[in-house]
Formats: sequence, structure tokens, C-alpha cells
Amino acid sequence: MKDQMAQVGLIMGSQSDWETMQHCAKLLSDLGVPFEQEVVSAHRTPDKMFSYAESAAKRQLKVIIAAAGGAAHLPGMVAAKTPLPVIGVPIQSKTLNGIDSLLSIVQMPAGIPVLTMSIGVSGAKNAALSAAAILALNNSDIAEALNTFRKQQSEHVTNHPNPEIK
Amino acid sequence: MKDQMAQVGLIMGSQSDWETMQHCAKLLSDLGVPFEQEVVSAHRTPDKMFSYAESAAKRQLKVIIAAAGGAAHLPGMVAAKTPLPVIGVPIQSKTLNGIDSLLSIVQMPAGIPVLTMSIGVSGAKNAALSAAAILALNNSDIAEALNTFRKQQSEHVTNHPNPEIK
Amino acid sequence: MKDQMAQVGLIMGSQSDWETMQHCAKLLSDLGVPFEQEVVSAHRTPDKMFSYAESAAKRQLKVIIAAAGGAAHLPGMVAAKTPLPVIGVPIQSKTLNGIDSLLSIVQMPAGIPVLTMSIGVSGAKNAALSAAAILALNNSDIAEALNTFRKQQSEHVTNHPNPEIK
Amino acid sequence: MKDQMAQVGLIMGSQSDWETMQHCAKLLSDLGVPFEQEVVSAHRTPDKMFSYAESAAKRQLKVIIAAAGGAAHLPGMVAAKTPLPVIGVPIQSKTLNGIDSLLSIVQMPAGIPVLTMSIGVSGAKNAALSAAAILALNNSDIAEALNTFRKQQSEHVTNHPNPEIK
Amino acid sequence: MKDQMAQVGLIMGSQSDWETMQHCAKLLSDLGVPFEQEVVSAHRTPDKMFSYAESAAKRQLKVIIAAAGGAAHLPGMVAAKTPLPVIGVPIQSKTLNGIDSLLSIVQMPAGIPVLTMSIGVSGAKNAALSAAAILALNNSDIAEALNTFRKQQSEHVTNHPNPEIK
Amino acid sequence: MKDQMAQVGLIMGSQSDWETMQHCAKLLSDLGVPFEQEVVSAHRTPDKMFSYAESAAKRQLKVIIAAAGGAAHLPGMVAAKTPLPVIGVPIQSKTLNGIDSLLSIVQMPAGIPVLTMSIGVSGAKNAALSAAAILALNNSDIAEALNTFRKQQSEHVTNHPNPEIK
Amino acid sequence: MKDQMAQVGLIMGSQSDWETMQHCAKLLSDLGVPFEQEVVSAHRTPDKMFSYAESAAKRQLKVIIAAAGGAAHLPGMVAAKTPLPVIGVPIQSKTLNGIDSLLSIVQMPAGIPVLTMSIGVSGAKNAALSAAAILALNNSDIAEALNTFRKQQSEHVTNHPNPEIK
Amino acid sequence: MKDQMAQVGLIMGSQSDWETMQHCAKLLSDLGVPFEQEVVSAHRTPDKMFSYAESAAKRQLKVIIAAAGGAAHLPGMVAAKTPLPVIGVPIQSKTLNGIDSLLSIVQMPAGIPVLTMSIGVSGAKNAALSAAAILALNNSDIAEALNTFRKQQSEHVTNHPNPEIK
Repeated sequence: MKDQMAQVGLIMGSQSDWETMQHCAKLLSDLGVPFEQEVVSAHRTPDKMFSYAESAAKRQLKVIIAAAGGAAHLPGMVAAKTPLPVIGVPIQSKTLNGIDSLLSIVQMPAGIPVLTMSIGVSGAKNAALSAAAILALNNSDIAEALNTFRKQQSEHVTNHPNPEIK
Repeated sequence: MKDQMAQVGLIMGSQSDWETMQHCAKLLSDLGVPFEQEVVSAHRTPDKMFSYAESAAKRQLKVIIAAAGGAAHLPGMVAAKTPLPVIGVPIQSKTLNGIDSLLSIVQMPAGIPVLTMSIGVSGAKNAALSAAAILALNNSDIAEALNTFRKQQSEHVTNHPNPEIK
Repeated sequence: MKDQMAQVGLIMGSQSDWETMQHCAKLLSDLGVPFEQEVVSAHRTPDKMFSYAESAAKRQLKVIIAAAGGAAHLPGMVAAKTPLPVIGVPIQSKTLNGIDSLLSIVQMPAGIPVLTMSIGVSGAKNAALSAAAILALNNSDIAEALNTFRKQQSEHVTNHPNPEIK
Repeated sequence: MKDQMAQVGLIMGSQSDWETMQHCAKLLSDLGVPFEQEVVSAHRTPDKMFSYAESAAKRQLKVIIAAAGGAAHLPGMVAAKTPLPVIGVPIQSKTLNGIDSLLSIVQMPAGIPVLTMSIGVSGAKNAALSAAAILALNNSDIAEALNTFRKQQSEHVTNHPNPEIK
Repeated sequence: MKDQMAQVGLIMGSQSDWETMQHCAKLLSDLGVPFEQEVVSAHRTPDKMFSYAESAAKRQLKVIIAAAGGAAHLPGMVAAKTPLPVIGVPIQSKTLNGIDSLLSIVQMPAGIPVLTMSIGVSGAKNAALSAAAILALNNSDIAEALNTFRKQQSEHVTNHPNPEIK
Repeated sequence: MKDQMAQVGLIMGSQSDWETMQHCAKLLSDLGVPFEQEVVSAHRTPDKMFSYAESAAKRQLKVIIAAAGGAAHLPGMVAAKTPLPVIGVPIQSKTLNGIDSLLSIVQMPAGIPVLTMSIGVSGAKNAALSAAAILALNNSDIAEALNTFRKQQSEHVTNHPNPEIK
Repeated sequence: MKDQMAQVGLIMGSQSDWETMQHCAKLLSDLGVPFEQEVVSAHRTPDKMFSYAESAAKRQLKVIIAAAGGAAHLPGMVAAKTPLPVIGVPIQSKTLNGIDSLLSIVQMPAGIPVLTMSIGVSGAKNAALSAAAILALNNSDIAEALNTFRKQQSEHVTNHPNPEIK
Repeated sequence: MKDQMAQVGLIMGSQSDWETMQHCAKLLSDLGVPFEQEVVSAHRTPDKMFSYAESAAKRQLKVIIAAAGGAAHLPGMVAAKTPLPVIGVPIQSKTLNGIDSLLSIVQMPAGIPVLTMSIGVSGAKNAALSAAAILALNNSDIAEALNTFRKQQSEHVTNHPNPEIK
């Protein structure tokens, strides 16, 4: 998807978040959504974060996916600096299992929303599906890809033989 | 906004959720987003919920905002039945302050995402802003309205005199 | 138990839930309760879920056991579509240990109850015992099997030699 | 319902739980389920609790509904002493909002289940509906009453006019 | 300590709790406190539990230590049946790390207290120390043993060389 | 009870805790347990706390009841300075309902136990009953008073007329 | 203190936080600590926040106190932009009592610390005391004022008459 | 740093906390902050703790870092006995992941603050950075070292190549 101009900016607070967020990247790629990925730390590179967020709309990004753990400020701060929809993914933290990440991302005050996903890998995948669903409103290729994905996941359940007692 | 065809479907699990969600409706209205609102209960009217979700895209809705409390299944079940982006608002529950509503909405499994907002009134307002941000990607009027809203809320903070010890 | 018409429908949201729910199946089988088991996902196969729930009573099922994890909507949605008693089993989730599953299942609003079990394997086994106890009200074979089970588990504790310091 | 022999035993750990549980009694009564109600404290009247539980099946009770708050031991201990299905209602506690009541009731070990409802008034009402659903398996009057109740609550949602911005 | 009449009754809800509670037994033994140990399940052997509790004072026990996990009813129910001080040890549960065990034990209603320890092995050891402290009020041998234990644990900290960066 | 030498030292971290702890004092008084009460703050009067704890045994106190809220260090620190049994009462805190008080008191490391009660007024009353139960091991007057108290609270439940639907 | 150059910058995310933070301002004032106060919102005025933080050291501020509620990003983001010590005060939030504010502030990743206080008014007061303690390391007037404050609060406890049963 | 007089006192409640706190020591050392380290247990060596805290200012310490787990009383009690700033590090506890440690440290009452860090290793490192930031207010060498550290950690993020899908 790297030849087309990126429509989704996938950022994360730390290199170690990539283990979770590669599942997002993989799914964006499978759905034909052009994206870019980068480590942008709210705390360690605040200026980079601000310029990233500020320039996002000008660079024709449509949606930003931001993942972070612990006192996860990246999604909310990016949302403060861009009018684009920002999807937040709470990374599962070591000490509190990600409940800190979740609350730090989802409990935004009125005025600046973050579209929050579930904690961890399922959230990473769902961020890709959410970004695709937003883009699909005006992109029939992505709409169709999403449609196919959803059909296949239904069929995967339906066609699977019933579980048996071992 | 009722003369134009609704682009946002605002639904809630119970009549009592309207106390919270009217803040969402008010803000959608202020931003010039055409919307419709209705009580649709996942548990008490499951069939109505399914036809609502199933017909949403055909009826030209672009985004669904679904609010519910406690074991809040409405947003997730609607998301299971429509390819449209679904924004979930956790209503503050009586017994557990809404932590049950939040977890029931946000912890969706990989495959079917719900774009989750903060608990209560702030989440209700942010759902309106999020829906507007998604529509703004292809609607310059809404983009401008959103832009104005964000500028004003910044100025409201900046122009306020500093607090003083009484 | 597969030769008799199933009286208990054991469903789960995901193939991976079988690792937990086979303990339920095994115990139903031991107690002589005729049952059927199937993966039915609220989110990935909502229509299948609705027809399953809708047809359950007609197919002479008496009790439904539904297991799910995370934002666990399966038990509550099935309960919305059938007058039969629905027993919910919260699967232990990866990130939040199942507290999300538990609250998503147990915190049902007035009007549509789910009979909720403990999280994980103990809940899976207890779902079998609960279904048996309900059926035992009008089935003396199951009543006797349950009675024997309870006696044996008491004796197992009583007859065990006291623990000793190693 | 007091002229017929009680089929449901409604007990609670404290006189003060009646404020919550009268909603259960009222609904049992509306559904035509014959029941009896009594304060039985696991901690203050353990012997009364044991004889109540032990004699329940002999006295032709079919289902026991037990409500308690805090370290809520009543439902689990009654379940230990009767083969009947026991439905537990967690009363909203003063200090921890009922999360202590919920966990004390629902987290039963494998072997002795409690069919757990949501915290507080909604749980009280749902206990009545659950007891009715269990009895309805062999009682067509209760089945019909339950059916009517469910239809009416659906219609109540459907017929309600849409909420309007004030 | 088995030759003397037991003064402490150490009971636990399940054979598997012994892994934790042997640390209690070991420490009671080290402190010269005569004790007995037994598996007594509130849920699987309620009658045994009642006779144990009822006969405890008559059998000259002075203190009961009761350990249990999950919906931990053993300590509270024993306390309901004996005037002796009952020390409760919350066993670390598989799904919720013992927060369920802790709340089920500590949140007793006014009237019937349980003297609650910390979760897991530290609680097991502290139960032994607590029982010893109670007995020490009228037993100078145990008082001295406890005194020695406390001195040694202080010295163990004081005499340890300072940690060094590796 | 002030004429006799105090056997129970009732201390609390703040003057405002008295609203809760007067229920403890009242019950100690009713049971004929000689006690003294005082505000002793771990944080604001650490030296007073240390001398109180250090001198407690010498002054013939047998049991210390210590109440505190929030980061409740009083019970644990007193326990570190006296071999007497220390009963801790978690005061219901303003922001976190007392879960912080509870964990700060109960989660003591191996070596120095605190005998922890439930949060708030019920814990205050139970602290009195626990202290009485410990003293009753060697004081037949208190044993009898406790016995009478327990009988009366049982009878209070038993003699109360059944609740009725209003 | 407004005549001297401010050494402490007291900022808060919302005008409504002033109800809590005026207790901080009052105490700073009592201790003779020169300070300034301002509403600076991380989300609604991100640029103002960045320039505030960036210029703080140049403007001779020594310590920043930042208060915020919900997804409280202000303290952490200011800490990312200044080398000065940043003290964070979690405001008690409406829905989750401030546990979200606390985790969003305290759970900072390695590299950028926030010195976190308790939730609400006690945290607001303690922020003033902490700032004073830091300044006191090189300011004997503040050291003495702090010393007097601590003495007086000890004496306030010591001199208070013992509580009495009403 | 051992040749210079220590300016930071690094203490911890247990030898086992060193595994976490050595990351603090290492970073203090890297930043050129002279420090000393010692195990000082609030519960097992209360007198040592008191003399440590009491003598700290006289011994020219400027900041104390105190780490503890579970019912973590060390930081708060040290803060009660010294006017110096006290930084608290919650050690990740075995049973409750450190939420008990965090609340026991951070929820200090008004009057005696503890400057609280995040749970575990990140908190240990941040304690070193916080102590350095406080000392840097009057020590240009440490200010420069801290400045260099912060620059390098920013560059580490910026210079790292973007993550790639494997």
C-alpha cells in the first residue's frame, strides 16, 4: 500500500507497541487501505507529535490510529491538534493489564473525543477495521474489501465443525 | 436538521438515556449534522434493533451513535449488523458508575469494533463531535462548523479571566 | 447423550471458548443430560444467533448455556430472543481476567435476565449443574444423578486424609 | 398468591434488603407465581438458614431466590444445602456499590452454583422473571404470563414517542 | 505440637488451599502453638462445617483460622456458628487474583466479624502470628516465642548487607 | 467502663473518624469492655503513635483497635510497634469509597499482621465484637455479654414479622 | 505573594477544577510561596500548554503544579516539555471518582515522571506542601513556614480533647 | 557517586524490592547524583525507619526515595518524620499487581504528601529522574546531565527506523 498516498497514519508511543500494532498494519494492508506507520512518543518526542498531528490533514491523511500504554496520552493529544478522527488503541500494560491505558484514552473530556478500541491485539485489529469503515463511506474498493472480510469471518464461524469432547 | 435526510442515526437503549443523549442531539444540531433519534433496545426490542441496523446503510445513514448502560449490548450488536462506523456511548449506571457500561461496549472482540466514547455526558457530546469529524471528511460545511466549534472552545479557555482565591 | 433429543443447548462465542466449555459438556454428559453444542457468535454470526435463540423452544430445548468473553453479548442477546432460562458463563479474558466478561453478562437491565455463573472453568462446570438442577425439577433421573454427584463431592472432601506439613 | 402453595421461596439477609426485593415480590405476584418471603440471615440465623434450605424441596418449593449484600453468603450457603436452583441477587452495598456483593455471590467454586442476577433493583426484578422462566417449563399459565410480560415490555419501547430536544 | 490439645483449628475450603496454608501450619508449629488442620468446605460439606464450628469451643479450641478462595464463605459461616475469634485468609484465586476472596471474607455485616488477613502466603503466615498474638495474652511461652520471632525478623533486616548495583 | 483499667485502646487517625468509630465505642461499652479512646495520627503525630504503641502492653492494654482512611497507615504501624493483636478498621474515604483504606490496612506483608474489619460502620461495630471475643477467652463476664448479644441479634431477625408488599 | 516573581506555576485543565485547586492556592499563599495560577487545557488549548511549559524555566518558575480530571493529560504533557519538577493533582471525576484521573497521571512511562498527589482536595493541599518542601531546600523562609505548619498540625491533633460518646 | 556525600537516600521495604530499585540506583548513578541505598522496613524495623527519617535532613540528604509493596507504609511514614521531599515508588505486588501498593502510597491525607511514581520499574527509573530534577534546581551539573538524558531519549525515538511488518 506504500505506493499510494497514505490515508491512515498509524502511530504508537513506543517501539515495543509494534508487537501489538503490526496486527493493525497487517489488516490495513489486507483491506487495501494505504497507510504509513511511525513511532511518535507523546512524552519523549512531544514536538514531533505536535507537528505530526498538525500536518496530518494537510498531508491528506483521513484517519489517525494512535496506540499507547500506561498513562496513554498520545491519542488524546493528537486529537487535540487535528480535526481528523483519531482512533485510540490501549496497549496492555505490564502492571495493570491495560486498564490504565484504557481509562487514559477513553475518558476524554467533552470537546476532544478519541474513538477508543478494546485493549491489546483485538483493539489493534479493530482499529484497522474502524479506519476502513470510515474510509469506506467514500471509497467503494475499501467498502467491498471490508464487506468481503466480514462475510468471510462469518463463514469461518459457520463452516467450522462443532467442537467435540476429547 | 430534520428536513434533510438524516446522516447520523442516534439510538439509545432506554428512554431514560435521553437525559444524557440530548446533549449529543443538541450538539449534532448545532453543528448542522442531519440526524434522527430513537429508542431501540437490544434486549427488549431485538428485532427492531436488527432491522434498524440492517437498513441503516440503505437509508443513507453514514454513522450510528448508540448509547446504553449496564450490560450495554446495543452498540456492539448494531455493529455486528452494519458495515457503518458505530460510535458507542456508555451511560453512567446506577450501581457501578458506568464501568460496566464502558467495558461492555469497548471490549469488543477482533472483527467487530465499536468506536467508544467516555462515560456519560462528556461521551454524549463527544459522540456528536466524532460523527461530525467523520462526516467532515467529505462535507465542507460540517468541516467548517467543527472547525468553528473547536476554535471557540479554545478561545473560551484562553479568554476566561484567571481564577482568584475567594 | 446424542441419541436423545437435546434438552440443553450449549453455545459459545468462539471456538477458543471450547477449552473452557468442554468441562461443561463433560459434566452434562456425566449427569445424563441430553445436550447439543455449537459455536454461535453474537458479533460474527448475529443472524445465526437469532435463529438459534428463536427456534430453541420450538426444538424442545429447555435451557440454554451461553459462554462468551470480553464484551460478552451472546448470553444477553440470546435471552432477549427466547423465553427459556439462559445461563451465562463468563470466559476468562486475556487482558482483564474476565471481569469484563462477567460485568457484560451479569449486569442485564430489568426485563431480560441472564443466570450468571462464575468466571472460567468453575463457571463452565456450574452451568452444567445448574441446567441439571432446572431439568431435575421434572426429571427424576437427572435429579438422582445430581443427587449422586453432590453426595460424591461431599464424600470426596470428607474421606480425604488431612493435609500434612511436608 | 398466598392461597396456593408457594413454589418460590424469596429470602433475604436483612430486613433492609426488602426495599430492593419488594420489586421481586411484586413481579412474582404479577406473573401469578405463588411465593413466600422471609428474612433469613446466613450470619445472624445460620441454623434457621440451614433448616430453611434443607426443608425447601420437601415443602414443594421449586426455586429459591436469595438476596444479600456485602460479604453475601446467603445464596451460596443455601445452594450448598438444597438441590433446588438458587437465584442470587446482590444488594447494592453502602461502601463498595455492590461489587463486593456481586463477587461474593457469583464467584462460587465448581460444584455448587448460584444463578446470579445484576446488582440491585434490576436484579430483584430479573430474579422474579428467572424464577418464572424456570417454572414456565412445566406450567403453561406462568409461561403465558411471562410471554405477555415480555410482549408488553417490547411494545412499551416501540410505542413510546421518540425523545425530543427540550 | 500434636501431643498437646490443639488450641488453634486451621481449616481450609479445599485441598488445593494447603499449598498456601502449609506456611501457616509451619509457623504455628515453629511458635509452639498446638493446632490441628483439616479440609472443611462450606459449600461441599456444609454440615461438617457447622459441627466443626459448633464444637470448636467445647473442644477447647481458642482461635479458628479459616482459608478460602473465590466466593469465600468458610470464614464468615464459621464465625456465625462460634463465639471464638475467627481469622480469615483469602486464597489467591485463579481469575481475579484474590480480590473476590478478600471482599467475600472481609466485608462481613455488623454482628459477625472475621479478622481478615492479606491475600495468599503472606496472609497465611500472618494468620499464624495473629493466632499466636491472641493466645500470647494468656500464655507466656507463646508470648516469648512470638517475641523472639519478631526480634529475629527485625535483625534479619538490620544485619543484611546493603544491596549493591550488579 | 472508665473506672476500670482500659483493656482495649481505641485509636483513630483523625477527629472525623469518630463519627464512624463511636459505634465501636458504644458497643464496647454495652459489652462491658473497659476501653479508652484517642485520636492518634500516624502521619501528623508519628511520635505520639509510637509511644502509644510501645507503651500499650505495659499499660495492660490487651487489644488495640485502630481506624484510618485513605492511605491508612495507623493500624499497620501500631502493629509494627506492639506484640498485642491490632484490629484495623478501614474508614470509608471520600474519593474511593474506602477501597484504598481497606487495601492499605489488609495487605500487610508477612511478619506484621493487622486483623482487618469491613469498611465503615459495620467494621467499627465488628471491631468491638472482635476485641470482646478475644478478651472473652479469659473473661467470663465479657464472654457472657457477647453470648447475650449474639442471641439477641439472632432473635431480632427471627422475631421480626415477615416483610410485606406495600 | 503576587508582588514577588512566581516560583510555582499552578495550572489546571478546566475552570471547574478551581473549586479543588483553590485549596492549593490558599496554602501556597499561607506558606509564603510566590505563585501564579491559570487555566491551561491540554486538550482545548494544546499550544498554550506547550508555550507555558516551554517558557516555565525561563520565567524562573521552579515547580509546576498541574491538576486535571478524567483522561488527565495536562501534568504528563507539561512534564514532557519542561525539565522542572511537575506535581500532578488528580481531580475527582464525576463518573469514576477520580481513579481514571489518578491512573492517567501516575502511570507515566519511564523517562518522564509526574510527582503524583492523592485525588481531590487532599491532593490539592499536598501539592502546595510538596512544592514548598522542594523550594525549602534552598529557601529558609519557606523552610521555616513549612516547619511551623507541620508543628501546628501535630499540635492540633495532640491538643484536641478526646472524642466522647454522645 | 559514593565518594561525595549522599544527597538522595534510596530506601526500600524489603531486600526483594532491590530487583526493581536497582534501576533507580543505576540511573541516579548515570546522572551523577550522589546517593546511598538501604533496606529499611516500616513494619519490621520501625525504629530504624524513624531514626533514618529523623536524621535525614541533618545528614544533608535533600530527597528521599522510598519503595514498598502491598500495604506500602514506608514512604508515607518517612514523610511524616522528615520535612524533605519524599518520592514513593509502588512495587508491583504478587497478588494485586501493585494497585494496593499504589493506593497505599498515593492516597495520603492532607498534611503529609508523598510524591508518587508509577508502579514498578518505570516508577523506579522515574524516581531517579524526579530526584535529579529537584536537585537540578540548584545544581547545574545535574541539570546538564538531566538535560542530556532527555535529549538522548528523544533522539532515540526519532532516530529509530520505522517498524516494518514482518
